[in-house]
Amino acid sequence: MQHTRSLSQQTPSNSLKVIFSGIQPTGIPHLGNYLGALRQWVHLQNTSDDSTTLIYSLVDLHAITLRQPPAQLRQWKRESLAMLLAIGLDPKRSTIFHQSTVPAHAELMWILSCQASTGYLGRMTQWKDKTSGEKEGSEKLKLGLFSYPVLQASDVLVHGATHVPVGEDQAQHLEFAREVARGFNHVYGDGTGPLMVPETIISSAKRVMSLTDPEAKMSKSHANPKSRILLTDSEDEIRGKTNAAVTDSNAGVSYDPVQRPGVSNLIDILYHCTKGAGFADQVALAKDLDGSSLRVVKQRVSDAIEGQVRPIRERYQEIISNDQLLDDASAEGMLKATISASATLAKVKQAIGLT
Amino acid sequence: MQHTRSLSQQTPSNSLKVIFSGIQPTGIPHLGNYLGALRQWVHLQNTSDDSTTLIYSLVDLHAITLRQPPAQLRQWKRESLAMLLAIGLDPKRSTIFHQSTVPAHAELMWILSCQASTGYLGRMTQWKDKTSGEKEGSEKLKLGLFSYPVLQASDVLVHGATHVPVGEDQAQHLEFAREVARGFNHVYGDGTGPLMVPETIISSAKRVMSLTDPEAKMSKSHANPKSRILLTDSEDEIRGKTNAAVTDSNAGVSYDPVQRPGVSNLIDILYHCTKGAGFADQVALAKDLDGSSLRVVKQRVSDAIEGQVRPIRERYQEIISNDQLLDDASAEGMLKATISASATLAKVKQAIGLT
Repeated sequence: MQHTRSLSQQTPSNSLKVIFSGIQPTGIPHLGNYLGALRQWVHLQNTSDDSTTLIYSLVDLHAITLRQPPAQLRQWKRESLAMLLAIGLDPKRSTIFHQSTVPAHAELMWILSCQASTGYLGRMTQWKDKTSGEKEGSEKLKLGLFSYPVLQASDVLVHGATHVPVGEDQAQHLEFAREVARGFNHVYGDGTGPLMVPETIISSAKRVMSLTDPEAKMSKSHANPKSRILLTDSEDEIRGKTNAAVTDSNAGVSYDPVQRPGVSNLIDILYHCTKGAGFADQVALAKDLDGSSLRVVKQRVSDAIEGQVRPIRERYQEIISNDQLLDDASAEGMLKATISASATLAKVKQAIGLT
Repeated sequence: MQHTRSLSQQTPSNSLKVIFSGIQPTGIPHLGNYLGALRQWVHLQNTSDDSTTLIYSLVDLHAITLRQPPAQLRQWKRESLAMLLAIGLDPKRSTIFHQSTVPAHAELMWILSCQASTGYLGRMTQWKDKTSGEKEGSEKLKLGLFSYPVLQASDVLVHGATHVPVGEDQAQHLEFAREVARGFNHVYGDGTGPLMVPETIISSAKRVMSLTDPEAKMSKSHANPKSRILLTDSEDEIRGKTNAAVTDSNAGVSYDPVQRPGVSNLIDILYHCTKGAGFADQVALAKDLDGSSLRVVKQRVSDAIEGQVRPIRERYQEIISNDQLLDDASAEGMLKATISASATLAKVKQAIGLT
């Protein structure tokens, strides 16, 4: 896969790698989350050798920058953890943990807050988006919405991550983390530390679009639940949502995301769920499908999704009802992540004179 | 003393009190620090019964909002801890700890960051002072200089403080902490918690002025070391600095801080170091001194300072060379403060759904 190829190009295969990635605990992931990021997490785990450390965080401290019902957050944390296990992450091989169980993230964040300039933060696209157009409204915005890129930087830096796979929308935040690390090392370090400056790995874009509104990304927050396939959907739900997917009235099958977003999204999903289905790209796959009715195409798409989702759904159902297993995984993750973070935090505290 | 009287007026004597106060570890305190705050800490410790918990923090995380040499911070932390013990704080009775050893301060700070509005922070006097006049400069200011009132709020709230003695310059920050606590309780609480809204206790102003520049406060950062008496100064240094203190050429002795700042400062010091010397106020003391030469007045001031400083200086010299004692005190403080903070942090995490 492109992902692991790009990793092995950037560092010699005999060096130690630390891969860090995070996901917000927003409950059951949808197919877009899975094909866009989570499947790669599992792939990285299953294809890397012992020289690679894998650290995956449920970033619950980021989930609270916007107010949400406490009971919902609690439930979503549990469901998200269960799902990381269900997709095949192994708590023995990978470190899987709730961010809030490792205080070092918040501790390093404060230290980096004394390094990060308010000007740089104010120029972040996501902050500007929130404040633009609101003349008086930005006053009321919470500090957390302004400062969270520093927490993100801490998330990555506190584990000494060497490689951070992110989507394109997070590239700016990773560059900020790199900048903060370089600045800190310049002031307090010896040229090589104490902070590791991570490589940003931009995931090859596997954007899955909404089934009901194919010009928008598939999203947890879309009002219509038929717009997305959840990783817990039954086979009937998968077939029902896929059959109801918005397409167009053009004749035949062709791959053209601009003119035919609905059909192209189905082809994308089929292509990614079958790992290419033996074709070089989506255009070739579409050519092969041309001549089939849309009903048949949707049938194949449903089959492909069900092929991906079924084993996850079945494992999830076992795991979510197993409190002991979830508690154990959570405790193991906390322990491993605490150990991972403590080394960098100790070096940082030493460097600035706190210890 | 006014201080303890105002405490007992605000809460019934049979209720539990938690007093929190912090000081930056900036090395050896001067006489102004001692008479303004530290002596009250000891008094509170020695006059309160078991229903009062006393928590005193060396707030080293605040010390890093401005860059400083790591070796200096490390030394100052050690000297400051030694001095808290030398003035008579007892680690068995009071909780005395380095802020950075208790992660809960940074953890709660992040949580409160999601509650505190950027507008309120931007209106803080000390932030406005830093940004005013610098059109482009505020861009470069570090996030920590903007967000530190939230850390201060966390310092107080994480220990469930009921009473916080502060100087007038910190009253605005305490009001901010109260506001954040009320806001958090309103959103996540049941009306009475989970955060305690602390009472602010404004210390009766005991401003000690510079000996060389008596219209400015005695300060660690004044260029001339003769402007301040350190709590480690020898008797010769005390007498030398006092004799060299700037006064005026008016005849006689009178208490008039506006017209005669230098003489009035000496009278203030004499008054406070002798706990009033039997007089109702400084005016009465000055009347009694009128007729004495300035040389004699300075002699009495030196005697009074030496009376306060000598036992502290002697204990400090014993303590600062005793690494074991300092390490033990630091460890004991960390343990007690960690326990103290964990109760509130657990309640807060539960309230917002992190646990």
